[in-house]
Amino acid sequence: MSAAADYGYIFDVAQLAHIELLTPDLERSLWFFRDLLGMEEVARKDGSAYLRAYDERYLTSLKLTPSEKPGLGHAAWRARSPRALERRVHAIEATGLGHGWIDGDIGHGPAYRFTTPEGHPMEIFWEVEWYEAPGDLQSRLPNRPQKRPGRGVPVRRLDHINLFAKDVKRCGDFMMEALGFQLREYIEARAGGYRGVWLSVSPMVHEIAFMHDEAGPGGRLHHICYWYGYPHQLWDVGDLFRENRVHIELGPAKHGITQAMPLYVYEPGGNRVELFGDVGYLIFEPDWRPIRWTEEHIERAAQEGGLPWLGGSFPAEYWVYGTPAAQIGVERAATAPTE
Amino acid sequence: MSAAADYGYIFDVAQLAHIELLTPDLERSLWFFRDLLGMEEVARKDGSAYLRAYDERYLTSLKLTPSEKPGLGHAAWRARSPRALERRVHAIEATGLGHGWIDGDIGHGPAYRFTTPEGHPMEIFWEVEWYEAPGDLQSRLPNRPQKRPGRGVPVRRLDHINLFAKDVKRCGDFMMEALGFQLREYIEARAGGYRGVWLSVSPMVHEIAFMHDEAGPGGRLHHICYWYGYPHQLWDVGDLFRENRVHIELGPAKHGITQAMPLYVYEPGGNRVELFGDVGYLIFEPDWRPIRWTEEHIERAAQEGGLPWLGGSFPAEYWVYGTPAAQIGVERAATAPTE
Amino acid sequence: MSAAADYGYIFDVAQLAHIELLTPDLERSLWFFRDLLGMEEVARKDGSAYLRAYDERYLTSLKLTPSEKPGLGHAAWRARSPRALERRVHAIEATGLGHGWIDGDIGHGPAYRFTTPEGHPMEIFWEVEWYEAPGDLQSRLPNRPQKRPGRGVPVRRLDHINLFAKDVKRCGDFMMEALGFQLREYIEARAGGYRGVWLSVSPMVHEIAFMHDEAGPGGRLHHICYWYGYPHQLWDVGDLFRENRVHIELGPAKHGITQAMPLYVYEPGGNRVELFGDVGYLIFEPDWRPIRWTEEHIERAAQEGGLPWLGGSFPAEYWVYGTPAAQIGVERAATAPTE
Amino acid sequence: MSAAADYGYIFDVAQLAHIELLTPDLERSLWFFRDLLGMEEVARKDGSAYLRAYDERYLTSLKLTPSEKPGLGHAAWRARSPRALERRVHAIEATGLGHGWIDGDIGHGPAYRFTTPEGHPMEIFWEVEWYEAPGDLQSRLPNRPQKRPGRGVPVRRLDHINLFAKDVKRCGDFMMEALGFQLREYIEARAGGYRGVWLSVSPMVHEIAFMHDEAGPGGRLHHICYWYGYPHQLWDVGDLFRENRVHIELGPAKHGITQAMPLYVYEPGGNRVELFGDVGYLIFEPDWRPIRWTEEHIERAAQEGGLPWLGGSFPAEYWVYGTPAAQIGVERAATAPTE
Repeated sequence: MSAAADYGYIFDVAQLAHIELLTPDLERSLWFFRDLLGMEEVARKDGSAYLRAYDERYLTSLKLTPSEKPGLGHAAWRARSPRALERRVHAIEATGLGHGWIDGDIGHGPAYRFTTPEGHPMEIFWEVEWYEAPGDLQSRLPNRPQKRPGRGVPVRRLDHINLFAKDVKRCGDFMMEALGFQLREYIEARAGGYRGVWLSVSPMVHEIAFMHDEAGPGGRLHHICYWYGYPHQLWDVGDLFRENRVHIELGPAKHGITQAMPLYVYEPGGNRVELFGDVGYLIFEPDWRPIRWTEEHIERAAQEGGLPWLGGSFPAEYWVYGTPAAQIGVERAATAPTE
Repeated sequence: MSAAADYGYIFDVAQLAHIELLTPDLERSLWFFRDLLGMEEVARKDGSAYLRAYDERYLTSLKLTPSEKPGLGHAAWRARSPRALERRVHAIEATGLGHGWIDGDIGHGPAYRFTTPEGHPMEIFWEVEWYEAPGDLQSRLPNRPQKRPGRGVPVRRLDHINLFAKDVKRCGDFMMEALGFQLREYIEARAGGYRGVWLSVSPMVHEIAFMHDEAGPGGRLHHICYWYGYPHQLWDVGDLFRENRVHIELGPAKHGITQAMPLYVYEPGGNRVELFGDVGYLIFEPDWRPIRWTEEHIERAAQEGGLPWLGGSFPAEYWVYGTPAAQIGVERAATAPTE
Repeated sequence: MSAAADYGYIFDVAQLAHIELLTPDLERSLWFFRDLLGMEEVARKDGSAYLRAYDERYLTSLKLTPSEKPGLGHAAWRARSPRALERRVHAIEATGLGHGWIDGDIGHGPAYRFTTPEGHPMEIFWEVEWYEAPGDLQSRLPNRPQKRPGRGVPVRRLDHINLFAKDVKRCGDFMMEALGFQLREYIEARAGGYRGVWLSVSPMVHEIAFMHDEAGPGGRLHHICYWYGYPHQLWDVGDLFRENRVHIELGPAKHGITQAMPLYVYEPGGNRVELFGDVGYLIFEPDWRPIRWTEEHIERAAQEGGLPWLGGSFPAEYWVYGTPAAQIGVERAATAPTE
Repeated sequence: MSAAADYGYIFDVAQLAHIELLTPDLERSLWFFRDLLGMEEVARKDGSAYLRAYDERYLTSLKLTPSEKPGLGHAAWRARSPRALERRVHAIEATGLGHGWIDGDIGHGPAYRFTTPEGHPMEIFWEVEWYEAPGDLQSRLPNRPQKRPGRGVPVRRLDHINLFAKDVKRCGDFMMEALGFQLREYIEARAGGYRGVWLSVSPMVHEIAFMHDEAGPGGRLHHICYWYGYPHQLWDVGDLFRENRVHIELGPAKHGITQAMPLYVYEPGGNRVELFGDVGYLIFEPDWRPIRWTEEHIERAAQEGGLPWLGGSFPAEYWVYGTPAAQIGVERAATAPTE
């Protein structure tokens, strides 16, 4: 038996590398990510803006692309090695969900494009550009890639993505089988199957989750998440959001699932953005036993004062509002509240 | 013109000194305040238990008295001097709301009993017993009256009381005219008058508030509040509350009014208890201009994602649930939720 | 006996209203207060810049005045009423330390100038300009005078001042007798007298402190302090300080005296600035018993791992470095460290 | 090329599973871990006590063994699979540092014992006992293995170990070559070689570090570390430590290396224990570029106000005090300070 058979393909995907968000209001989306979340614009090309958080190693983690409707442009995974990339491309091709190679983009080299079974657009690549801070943005900390900004309440790095799906199990299985993700927590549906799954390729509880798209067609974005590392900064950025009329959906709160501390807001383009205050808990156990939540559990928790473990309750919109994955032409299922 | 004419009587009341709570379940109320909030039982007399928080100077700030129903036993104010006590007793007598003197109780000397216009029971006194920690409870900090406990998430001191009233203005005027409180913030009712008033005798925004008792007869307790001083401890104690099935009504959150960070729970006897994480803001301006909130403001805030500035929205029960001031025979207007 | 005899003059001074700092580098001092501490410049006159923190009610709390050397321009107290102002001016005149009236300055009306027995320049006034935020700086919170800035880690309000004195007792007595301050905590010197005193006119432990000027001539500034209200923001602003080469002297820490959480830095002009994370503890007891610390206590605490209750130990410079009160020609006793 | 060749053996070790500490004062060490850190005693055998933190999945992470001197009993790693265990045992045997198998202990099955080149005792195993909480210790959170305790300020899980070595490079190379650890950060010695190395098998910056044993013989324990996940709890537990005369060496602070927030104390047996408030930063990049610190960097940082990024400076004892790895007869190089 080879080493590979021990672990299978579970380490071929190293990390969530970047996200492309579609926005009908590029300037205001830029204001949100740059002035409130303290991100840096590092490039502009073909109308898209590329941003980075100050604690990220690569050039960029966010591409903002003007579009008629908000939604997910694509989510990009970095493979662990050139060989790992090859293996994953073969596995994806075998599913029939592969779309083929692109030459690359600002910040990375050749990438293989594919979708989940519900059409969420993704890519995987190996070659990446590490960030080199210009003189005035160099940090005094050797292990910090960029000086901490003095603008807004600056986020540190991209954390995860959460997608709406009609068939949660099918999407989760795809990520596990074609890409090597592991199941960490799930909500079992009363009628069988899953209402939500949380999957990771690292000790984090998830780099990706799928939740049941109750009111929509699936294939959509629920939210992307940036990380602070310090729960208190959710209050600081929340105060900025309130002063600047950014719609807060929930939080600061403490999740039951993942145990992490979130704040959910809508960026001006209409996409939901989560901010994570801490890491919740980390999973180091190689034979992890996925955590099972039932719908009864969720309902009882709601009756007992809300689904989050602490800090209020999910409003109805949380379960139905998402933004369309534009490439596959899904219509928006709900309207983002405005203040 | 004498000095008194400058300030009138605004400094005769020094502080909220203690609260008597009525509880139909003394043992479980004791468990809540002692094991979860880290308070110390310092005496037991005539069936009542007396407790203290570790950062309080006097012997006790909480008397728990068994009773058929929950509610306020009384709230007690300490005068600034013997002469100040005299003046306030004269002023109260002039209102016809005075009940006369009692000899004292555990922790304090002679006290004059009275009620607000709606019958909320109160007393005012001068002589008080300062706490002397026994050897094993002595702190290493000369300015800390008692060693910080290692039990639960220990509160530091009594902060304020909030009362339900049918006629908020009348109750507020009584506190201002007979006792020297100053108006700090208020909610103006659409129909005229006040829906809520926040009053203090110190730079704190309030030691006492009155809110409109929409569903009840007035004269009742809305909540008492203990203080942490560190907002993060609301998350810690909130976690303990969830694990131990103590009903959390709201929070951790950040108030608009007072700007303080609260967590609201129901102690097992049924009384609402607020925990304050910070001080909000302090008022040092001698010619303070009371802050006006309108019902439109409250409603708009609710539409925009909740009335607290951050951290969820007040559930319906917040506006209607209170506990009866037993001495005046008010019936309970709602049932405390249980988990 | 009149009401005045009850309280004497203890309430004639309402608050520390503003500070004038002298700086040999106005532009960099401005950068520090505006870009790192998030303060707003509201006026410029005769070469001086006037700033405010976003949670302050009056127009300005800080005047930065170019000067050859750093130090205290003056500290200004607001009286509680016109009559209180009169009384204090009479009392100060009787000490022989009064300098007479000035017409006023940006943000306030006529002020009476005086010094402490060691020449620390001060003034007291009544008429003040309340701040009215222009449209784009208006907060959505009725009780917040100005929108929370998105620049640096914004402080909320001026908190206190700490002065170096050769004769701590004499300076403290002056503040108590002429201005009505109350003694809250003190360090008793082994040789008799005081090594430090903490005095207030409110429940805060101090608006002013005097500490023994071991290496200097007295009459100097030790530090001014701005308030956050949230301890965690000390870490955020500390990170900005480190990235931007602002010298941190101590903290984030937790004081024994006052129990508050401080961070000490040197603004680029050379003056020490303290940032307070919380309020420590508040004093509501009218017959407060001043807290006594001995030099033995201080030394033992130092041996046990530092004088602050938590968070490191005071470096030697803390006890000797101060900035001269320029008007009285005191030479600087030490050189501000630079990074 | 097989998958194994991609990753080599870098994933054979899954995690730091438990630590055995030697203590000359078992009862007081137990008091420290149980009453202050809120850990649970789950077994007692042959005079040793076994404890667990409430957020740990396996039965136990700490074995306290009575001994004449403090020090490391052993550190135990869990392999990722039975096959991974086999591979690592073969690799260790090839180094000549293997000691052979033991049958197991409370909480785990057969384990292979070995030492580092300097004799730090270790073991590696696969079979482990997952914790099942008894009824009264069951959490309401499905993903929390045990109810959060209401005792002390409870730690959540074992985080890492730090060892003193005379030859840091040799020890680090052994962990990398025989066990698959990856180099994350290091301090380059002026004379060549390393003064410290931080190594991990996960996105955490380290599960193990070696630092140069300047004053001792090497082969010793510098500290073990437990994790909170919330930086603020360092202040809470630090307050308990001060009240209970537990010696605090440094913190709460923020490290430069790892960027995590630590508090260092000495448990009553004399071993240094670190408490981590957050995770610092996480490493997901598969081609991580180890962070290089120089001695010049360390010295400059010290001159600039301390080596930690924030929160004081390492006292001299930090660099010289460690506890002997008793099995190899190393004498204690310094005396633990006592309060």
